[in-house]
Amino acid sequence: MGPTSEPRSFHCELAWLGGESVVADVLVETDGRLITNVVAGSPAPAGVTRLRGVTIPGLANAHSHAFHRALRSRTHGDGGTFWTWREEMYALARVLDPDSYFHLARAVFAEMVCAGITCVGEFHYLHHGAGGARYGDPNAMGSVLLAAAAEAGIRITLLDTCYLSGGFGAELNDVQRRFSDGDADAWIARVDGLVSHADSDAKVGAAVHSVRAVDPGSIGLVAGWASGRSAPLHAHVSEQPAENEQCVAVLGKSPMQVFALAGAMGAKFTAVHATHLLPADVRLLAGHRSTVCLCPTTERDLADGIGPTKEFREAGVALSLGSDSHAMIDLFEEARAVEMGERVLTLKRGAHDVAALLRAATVGGHSSLGWEDAGRIEAGAIADLVSVGLDSVRLAGTTAFTALAALVFAASPSDVHHVVVGGRVVVADHQHVSLDVGGQLSASIARVT
Amino acid sequence: MGPTSEPRSFHCELAWLGGESVVADVLVETDGRLITNVVAGSPAPAGVTRLRGVTIPGLANAHSHAFHRALRSRTHGDGGTFWTWREEMYALARVLDPDSYFHLARAVFAEMVCAGITCVGEFHYLHHGAGGARYGDPNAMGSVLLAAAAEAGIRITLLDTCYLSGGFGAELNDVQRRFSDGDADAWIARVDGLVSHADSDAKVGAAVHSVRAVDPGSIGLVAGWASGRSAPLHAHVSEQPAENEQCVAVLGKSPMQVFALAGAMGAKFTAVHATHLLPADVRLLAGHRSTVCLCPTTERDLADGIGPTKEFREAGVALSLGSDSHAMIDLFEEARAVEMGERVLTLKRGAHDVAALLRAATVGGHSSLGWEDAGRIEAGAIADLVSVGLDSVRLAGTTAFTALAALVFAASPSDVHHVVVGGRVVVADHQHVSLDVGGQLSASIARVT
Repeated sequence: MGPTSEPRSFHCELAWLGGESVVADVLVETDGRLITNVVAGSPAPAGVTRLRGVTIPGLANAHSHAFHRALRSRTHGDGGTFWTWREEMYALARVLDPDSYFHLARAVFAEMVCAGITCVGEFHYLHHGAGGARYGDPNAMGSVLLAAAAEAGIRITLLDTCYLSGGFGAELNDVQRRFSDGDADAWIARVDGLVSHADSDAKVGAAVHSVRAVDPGSIGLVAGWASGRSAPLHAHVSEQPAENEQCVAVLGKSPMQVFALAGAMGAKFTAVHATHLLPADVRLLAGHRSTVCLCPTTERDLADGIGPTKEFREAGVALSLGSDSHAMIDLFEEARAVEMGERVLTLKRGAHDVAALLRAATVGGHSSLGWEDAGRIEAGAIADLVSVGLDSVRLAGTTAFTALAALVFAASPSDVHHVVVGGRVVVADHQHVSLDVGGQLSASIARVT
Repeated sequence: MGPTSEPRSFHCELAWLGGESVVADVLVETDGRLITNVVAGSPAPAGVTRLRGVTIPGLANAHSHAFHRALRSRTHGDGGTFWTWREEMYALARVLDPDSYFHLARAVFAEMVCAGITCVGEFHYLHHGAGGARYGDPNAMGSVLLAAAAEAGIRITLLDTCYLSGGFGAELNDVQRRFSDGDADAWIARVDGLVSHADSDAKVGAAVHSVRAVDPGSIGLVAGWASGRSAPLHAHVSEQPAENEQCVAVLGKSPMQVFALAGAMGAKFTAVHATHLLPADVRLLAGHRSTVCLCPTTERDLADGIGPTKEFREAGVALSLGSDSHAMIDLFEEARAVEMGERVLTLKRGAHDVAALLRAATVGGHSSLGWEDAGRIEAGAIADLVSVGLDSVRLAGTTAFTALAALVFAASPSDVHHVVVGGRVVVADHQHVSLDVGGQLSASIARVT
């Protein structure tokens, strides 16, 4: 993201500092990257950058497949199932190369920043060339994702994903060969070459695609690599009933049990989706202090279903949110959809309170991605600030008293005014400061569809 | 809406003319109010108003309680149920008077136009003063709603609502006395005084609040009034399981059966919500050629549940959409939520195709509200045109081939550029041409909350 910024301060008309309501006139001082001081009820000093409306910590998008953005409006009106949708997604995966993926990912990450997202967890499995041919740099694809994030002005955790089989013990098909390193040791050797690319704005974490794509022994090797580096470890878990059925048939266990027995679960493990769980699976999550990343707009688009989010809450399982397939990029919608899913299933309101949903969208996601020092507006945290205007026709009528609920239950990305990432202003007055995001999305999508 | 406009033509970069895809370079000629000619593949003549992106017929919001907009972000984060939410809604109903409701409704209707809505069905039951005291003009409240719609530039069907009891045979409480005319004959006498207010931009229709609030004999009288005038008749039907249970306990029938036996059902009858239906209820709807108005963002917010929308489709029951309590005003979200609800319940995609969802949002709603001559871009129809830009970060990447799916599955009100209502441009470049909508929402909501 370029050289370190100068110290800069921001004055928030209203700000959410983590409690049950917002606070007025909050001065946030930074050293250029970190927050050094937060003073509520402060007048605005001369020269400070004023943030209108309500300012929240940066949103974290804890589960992204950047290239799926090119499928928006191309697969969402279709019939069929998750599995027929996957064929269309594979057709896109077939054509991407490092150059086209760089341009697409940069635009998608920039769309995220415009929506108030300051950190993305990119669940990255498109490693190799056509038919699995290795690029000269075996991390060519991962490297362009890191470069794309830097140019878009977003922090990233590249969750480099192990993918070895096309189903429980099944052969890889032609597209899936692009995903596979052959075995877990080869995955480790490749990813070891990637970690040197990490810097203050980029981390490298690990992911297991799923129990369909990685056998238990290999899961253990990936988990060992992540554990040895104290890196986050993510996995798709129980997104589809068919995955559970096959897992029980082949391995005699639920997917979550497979991860637990492979030694993958712990405080740095995030189960993505976790839609079709048994009560015992929820107890495993809670017992290991593992977390769950929910992706409601994707889970409804793909007809995955609605996960047991109230059970997660009651068991103390921390939540994060992801826009996953990017049917839309709107963390506010993801947050409210968690509660709305509960309401339509149980015919009761209030399983998730507003502050809990905002924590999932901010500190929950950052924590899941290994950024324990982000997602909060407090001294010592990374200076990520997102100001949401309250004067659009959509949010007009909001007061300080109702601002938190307005964010979760009514806000949209178009309400995001300013976005500060690590002390730098990346979006000002709704516009990315360095990229023509709409134009770059159009051009990069046209190139690959 | 002021004097009749001059003849004016519009040239649409892309337009949806009702089929399965969009058409390029569509010239729409009008006589000032009606479309006189539609030519696809036409160059743009000099002096024509150019509409960028994709142009669709005006959206119809078939179920609105305008004053609920003031509750946005005030009740949506709460726990409890529909019934506890209703107490908060009543507290707001208690304080409104004709002047404050005029200002609030004008701003809310203007928000609707900015979101591409050209016609609203206002389900209006707040008729009388404090404790039920009659205003000097017994239609004071209805009249201000008609005036508010005219100033906002939206067409309206005022669905004047009969409300007589506070539950099956129960006394009215203090707020409910504002809703009641005492009996159906008094409702008829009052509404007969309102119909003279109708004009080319406003219709008066009838509504029965629910089987909770109107006994079967009175339902028959209201239905007879509507039938005699060929006016639309709407009713809340089976929004909540408790309503069904009480109805069966007291009347021995489902709510839909009560409406059928009271003679209320027919092609001009719209069942609003219809969430908790028996298969026999669906057959009643189909047999009477009655329609259903779905309000998914409200039904999820109030934990009503998800209705049998696939069954409606399969039975040939036409659908319309409403933003109801205005948790948000976003007909695109209502449309996609119909399909998404099916997906999460059935774990299958494609119960509703894209064109069917757009028809529900346009011609379906207009038809339900008695505007058989609107909701289509064709000669003879009212000239309602809504242009949706495809260049936002949200819709970037959309092509002519994917435009319909993008509208339903990705668009938001902030993508609406221009709105033409009955030949007049009411919204240009995202801005209402005569009202400061955000400012008026803020001021009018602050006054009543």
